[in-house]
Amino acid sequence: MAIDLSLPPEVQALADRTGSFIRDHVLPLEDAHNGDIAAAGGDRFREQLQQAARDAGVFAPHAPVEYGGHGLGMCDRAPVFEAAGYSLFGPTALNIAAPDEGNVHMLAHIANPEQKLQYLAPLAHGEVRSAFAMTEPAPGAGSDPSALATRAVRAEGGWRINGTKYFITGADGAGFFIIMARTSGEPGQRGGATMFLAPADTPGIRVGRHLDTLDRSMVGGHCEVFFDDVLVPESAVLGEVDRGFEYAQVRLGPARMTHVMRWLGAARRGHDVAVAHVARRQGFGARLGDLGMVQKMIADNEIDIAATRALLTRACWELDRGEPAANATSIAKTFAAEAIFRIVDRSMQMCGGLGVSGDLPLARLSREVRPFRIYDGPSEVHRWAIAKRAVGAAERALRDSE
Amino acid sequence: MAIDLSLPPEVQALADRTGSFIRDHVLPLEDAHNGDIAAAGGDRFREQLQQAARDAGVFAPHAPVEYGGHGLGMCDRAPVFEAAGYSLFGPTALNIAAPDEGNVHMLAHIANPEQKLQYLAPLAHGEVRSAFAMTEPAPGAGSDPSALATRAVRAEGGWRINGTKYFITGADGAGFFIIMARTSGEPGQRGGATMFLAPADTPGIRVGRHLDTLDRSMVGGHCEVFFDDVLVPESAVLGEVDRGFEYAQVRLGPARMTHVMRWLGAARRGHDVAVAHVARRQGFGARLGDLGMVQKMIADNEIDIAATRALLTRACWELDRGEPAANATSIAKTFAAEAIFRIVDRSMQMCGGLGVSGDLPLARLSREVRPFRIYDGPSEVHRWAIAKRAVGAAERALRDSE
Amino acid sequence: MAIDLSLPPEVQALADRTGSFIRDHVLPLEDAHNGDIAAAGGDRFREQLQQAARDAGVFAPHAPVEYGGHGLGMCDRAPVFEAAGYSLFGPTALNIAAPDEGNVHMLAHIANPEQKLQYLAPLAHGEVRSAFAMTEPAPGAGSDPSALATRAVRAEGGWRINGTKYFITGADGAGFFIIMARTSGEPGQRGGATMFLAPADTPGIRVGRHLDTLDRSMVGGHCEVFFDDVLVPESAVLGEVDRGFEYAQVRLGPARMTHVMRWLGAARRGHDVAVAHVARRQGFGARLGDLGMVQKMIADNEIDIAATRALLTRACWELDRGEPAANATSIAKTFAAEAIFRIVDRSMQMCGGLGVSGDLPLARLSREVRPFRIYDGPSEVHRWAIAKRAVGAAERALRDSE
Amino acid sequence: MAIDLSLPPEVQALADRTGSFIRDHVLPLEDAHNGDIAAAGGDRFREQLQQAARDAGVFAPHAPVEYGGHGLGMCDRAPVFEAAGYSLFGPTALNIAAPDEGNVHMLAHIANPEQKLQYLAPLAHGEVRSAFAMTEPAPGAGSDPSALATRAVRAEGGWRINGTKYFITGADGAGFFIIMARTSGEPGQRGGATMFLAPADTPGIRVGRHLDTLDRSMVGGHCEVFFDDVLVPESAVLGEVDRGFEYAQVRLGPARMTHVMRWLGAARRGHDVAVAHVARRQGFGARLGDLGMVQKMIADNEIDIAATRALLTRACWELDRGEPAANATSIAKTFAAEAIFRIVDRSMQMCGGLGVSGDLPLARLSREVRPFRIYDGPSEVHRWAIAKRAVGAAERALRDSE
Repeated sequence: MAIDLSLPPEVQALADRTGSFIRDHVLPLEDAHNGDIAAAGGDRFREQLQQAARDAGVFAPHAPVEYGGHGLGMCDRAPVFEAAGYSLFGPTALNIAAPDEGNVHMLAHIANPEQKLQYLAPLAHGEVRSAFAMTEPAPGAGSDPSALATRAVRAEGGWRINGTKYFITGADGAGFFIIMARTSGEPGQRGGATMFLAPADTPGIRVGRHLDTLDRSMVGGHCEVFFDDVLVPESAVLGEVDRGFEYAQVRLGPARMTHVMRWLGAARRGHDVAVAHVARRQGFGARLGDLGMVQKMIADNEIDIAATRALLTRACWELDRGEPAANATSIAKTFAAEAIFRIVDRSMQMCGGLGVSGDLPLARLSREVRPFRIYDGPSEVHRWAIAKRAVGAAERALRDSE
Repeated sequence: MAIDLSLPPEVQALADRTGSFIRDHVLPLEDAHNGDIAAAGGDRFREQLQQAARDAGVFAPHAPVEYGGHGLGMCDRAPVFEAAGYSLFGPTALNIAAPDEGNVHMLAHIANPEQKLQYLAPLAHGEVRSAFAMTEPAPGAGSDPSALATRAVRAEGGWRINGTKYFITGADGAGFFIIMARTSGEPGQRGGATMFLAPADTPGIRVGRHLDTLDRSMVGGHCEVFFDDVLVPESAVLGEVDRGFEYAQVRLGPARMTHVMRWLGAARRGHDVAVAHVARRQGFGARLGDLGMVQKMIADNEIDIAATRALLTRACWELDRGEPAANATSIAKTFAAEAIFRIVDRSMQMCGGLGVSGDLPLARLSREVRPFRIYDGPSEVHRWAIAKRAVGAAERALRDSE
Repeated sequence: MAIDLSLPPEVQALADRTGSFIRDHVLPLEDAHNGDIAAAGGDRFREQLQQAARDAGVFAPHAPVEYGGHGLGMCDRAPVFEAAGYSLFGPTALNIAAPDEGNVHMLAHIANPEQKLQYLAPLAHGEVRSAFAMTEPAPGAGSDPSALATRAVRAEGGWRINGTKYFITGADGAGFFIIMARTSGEPGQRGGATMFLAPADTPGIRVGRHLDTLDRSMVGGHCEVFFDDVLVPESAVLGEVDRGFEYAQVRLGPARMTHVMRWLGAARRGHDVAVAHVARRQGFGARLGDLGMVQKMIADNEIDIAATRALLTRACWELDRGEPAANATSIAKTFAAEAIFRIVDRSMQMCGGLGVSGDLPLARLSREVRPFRIYDGPSEVHRWAIAKRAVGAAERALRDSE
Repeated sequence: MAIDLSLPPEVQALADRTGSFIRDHVLPLEDAHNGDIAAAGGDRFREQLQQAARDAGVFAPHAPVEYGGHGLGMCDRAPVFEAAGYSLFGPTALNIAAPDEGNVHMLAHIANPEQKLQYLAPLAHGEVRSAFAMTEPAPGAGSDPSALATRAVRAEGGWRINGTKYFITGADGAGFFIIMARTSGEPGQRGGATMFLAPADTPGIRVGRHLDTLDRSMVGGHCEVFFDDVLVPESAVLGEVDRGFEYAQVRLGPARMTHVMRWLGAARRGHDVAVAHVARRQGFGARLGDLGMVQKMIADNEIDIAATRALLTRACWELDRGEPAANATSIAKTFAAEAIFRIVDRSMQMCGGLGVSGDLPLARLSREVRPFRIYDGPSEVHRWAIAKRAVGAAERALRDSE
């Protein structure tokens, strides 16, 4: 028994197959549509991509085998998701884009058999998309989830939900919503949230405007969603009442890590484009790739890629062992979001004017990866949580030693 | 006689007037059109903006008085241009956007009376726009201007120009071009360039596609331009034959600094938006602006703004004394381009999800300022030049001391 | 009237003379004693250095003319102090080391004629050294001066002082102390401090151990000082009772800036040593100074030096106009302390193994400059103050616009 | 079969035992002697420390079992060496300090039975120390080993060695030297080196001055060593003639990683001291550890520690599989050396004035860890190697795709 970082051969094979599929089939489409998935056709385009992924045998690596997936654990997802993320359209093609991927993960853990049949099965198969309705405009739930203001109150035969959400990824065109609403307590209190499942055509659910964010690669955008007297039956409750925050944690850690996997793939593409550029191009009497300042950027990218992967492995291994891994995922997410941004930024810089133009994918990648330093918890919130744990532990140690 | 950093009162007044004009008249238009000047109407929109600036008495602060401008020197331009840059559309409104502003500067120094009448006067008055056609696709003139490949050869009654340019700012819709072409020597040699003036409708000049760069605020975009057997008369030569690189230097230093002034204004707006956001918004049981990690970002922005201004003052003062200021402008440009990027990036981060959305101007500002680390000489090229001077000086000192 | 950054010729001449004196006379002594001024002889060594400075006509550039100094203002001190700081022993030689230099500045502003005669005159002439006893061990006055715990209570014919100080620079061997003590209010309250002047041999004053800090260039070290029932007459009060914090501010801004000037000189020496090294040394088939990663370090040093000087000029100009310049000096100090550290660190890196050895002065310089990011207010405290001002201003603007 | 990061229980137990031994026995001695091992008694002190380690059952975790060690592989060494490095004296106590630890590693791989008996056995048992004589003053072997200038020429019955080395760690008091000398080719050529074993009292070997570097924790310092007509028998050749550079690689990768392990322990101690400090100390109306800017430093330390460990695991796993791991060890070393420096620097900053004083170990730690960014290959050289591999791979890929 000893430390082992080798990948199971079937996982390696799936990762390789995914890499080929992305390179041969998906990247040309991304480049043709400049990474704008709405412009490429939105959901119709998604269906074509997903059919191609099915044909290539790379569809739904994360989904349980009984729902047509490959059933990979977190450590095994890492190389496959990274290969998928190499194209901005790749995660959609494999049905592992946010928020569907995280929702599949959570539903597989928490939903009851009926809910699995109604929601998980079509989601895992790519028949519908979903949205996770948690974030609210200020002063509601944002980086601080306890501020949750959307309310669900008991009504005849179920619950009545009222509230406003925004930055709801994939809302426009989603088949159903997972709605986080307060069933007890007041905004600012940590408990008292419940998750509800509701088809998108439930009366009272209205998808508003898109937030027009820097990123363009997610089908269904980031939208405002209004819940006005939305009536759902008792069977809409996911898991148990008042345990919503707890379930959100189940979703959170893995979702953070799959985000990292996907964006790391995107960053790696940026790096590859840049290195190929400087390996060819001349300037100042030398090949650009032989100039020291360029070499520094390349090496820093390689270091950032390696460190991101290494932190990811650690956090995924903890998750696979069933640990909450709150600290390991916070550390990996914070480092990765900043490293990925740096990688793309340096890659853009290495390509000079072309780097900020539409002739290379770098400008597009720079738009896509920037929000990740904010989405899924801004770096500042993760740092705050990491530090609180460290200071708390030091305090306990000091108290014990007195 | 002593160091004096006080601004002449009439300059301060013009800067204040510019600030008010931008805030009251220009910013609302920028926000309405999301900073996309082509979408806002392109040249027709520019004409309206410029008329408003004339009415407000803030038009053409840089142009010689005899051409309707305020005739400001470099030090005096700094606060006025920064005030204009506070809106992405501000420089266009005041007729001090690139490349026109730099072209006015250069024509005022180098053009002969006939050329001034034909080109400078209408340009300074905002009747036409111009383009400076220097940069070429690889392996032509880029960061390394000596690679200049476009050729002008003597022809009957003048010169025949052939070559391809790209990243030519403002080319689409420009009234005339200043064309840098090789009149002697070979690509890779430092001398042998000449500048030619040519109306945009000269046969053989063709504006190609836009490069689709991250920035959207410059009228006329960044374009490919083709020169196919363009015949120009002897009178088209700007200054003297074979002195083009020398003249480019005249343009370069001041143009670098006015770039800094304008983008610094944009960065300051980003900072102001973010500070106003965190001065209001609550989170984690406190006002965001009272949280230490937010305070750090604010203070770092203040430091970057102050340092950029201070370096700018130094370089402008050297330019106003008639020095080439190659080192001072390289230092100021390099620091500023990176500082401005950091300021906008931190401002975006302070605003969380809203920061990367269309609800605040920060995402747009982040797109606009990124290319400045590449335009006007990538940071790496400036650092190379700065280091070469330092090592060269050390080498001479060592030799002298032996 | 316009911005002017030119130096008065007599100041330039003094700066040049100082530069020569340092290079020819002081640097060899610093190198011989490895920058350890105690090992070099302490106060006796100081007296020799100062006599040499007098002979060279560069002694006491800051002191009022009537006390034998050159009477320079803040802007004019900058180049002269930077030239002095080029050697770690230089400030001592010119009698402009901390804390004496700041004490001369403060006494010239606040002391009454008798106090000037008794304390300022011998201090300005280098006949004695002084100490400024403000900082206290936790939970007393540190970064947060309002925590001041040392007390002075009225006693027959004067005041009785009790308290403990530490990090008192120059205490060991000082001729007199300026003691900050609380005369009203409680620790945690902002007012209520008074400054007292007391000869070092006043009964009850005891200098304890040295704190053994990283730096070694200040005569008298950084010490603990105990005040046990120290009885001082009424005439010992500097200025007025209860205005001590206010006077500390008078001292603070200029003292911050002269610190920057001196350390910038030290950083510049490190840079010069490194550039000379890489201008000569070969490696990897090239001169080290022609390798891109080395060029990057050189250029970053040049940028940091230029930005530090530029921010310094701004803050000094405000101080010379009689403004408190709290923000400008905080910005300049924070940037400078970090820039100076980076400059020395990069210089060390450029010299490889020799850089961390005793064969070059860089290891020594790295020890000396590190504490400056903490002394005179840690960077975090300055950033906090800078951000508070910015957020406060934004808050007022928001309130006004409502 | 899947990724597994769990530590074998016996390794965990050894790491825990090492941690206790360091805390209870070694740290108090380090603090008493301020980390200066020469001042603590040099080799006599080392012998006492090592006896204590033997008594605690933690001696020689790396050495082959047949030589009295625990025979740990690289992955297993990581937690044990990190625990040892928690005190600057810890590696000496366990007999795993540089260069002995790396020499044991190399001799176990390359030495013949007689050499193992004569050199490896006493070294592994802590009876003697050793030195690895490779680095030379310019223009000899430094970052670029091919510049090797020391020569060994065939002489009657063996070889005659001439040359000068410096920065030879542990030379003063070493029992024997491993001497790298050129047996064919010219300085600048990659091959042609041979390693020789020679007792320290071999005529012609002379240890010169110590280089007086920033670090103080290695017994025997970093010295100049002169080889003047040193005659060694044929049996002194380690391995085969002309394969010295190849053997150096065998030593290099693991030695890089054990350096990282040890320094990471030191950085972790700095972090622990700082977090304990801010978990207790008040300021600005709050506990320091609850202030956002302090939390940021703590979190950044935690991230740097986690990333260093994660990269280390990766590289050690490759080494344990028998791969050369040149890229993985370069990446881990470069990241780690900079991360360790940042960790200690932030820890120092968190402790304010105390941080740069002798009252806490941070100032001392900051001196110790700085050279690691230069020792074992400066960061710039590693980045250059990393980039060359990346560009080379891109070039091959481009060629293949043509």
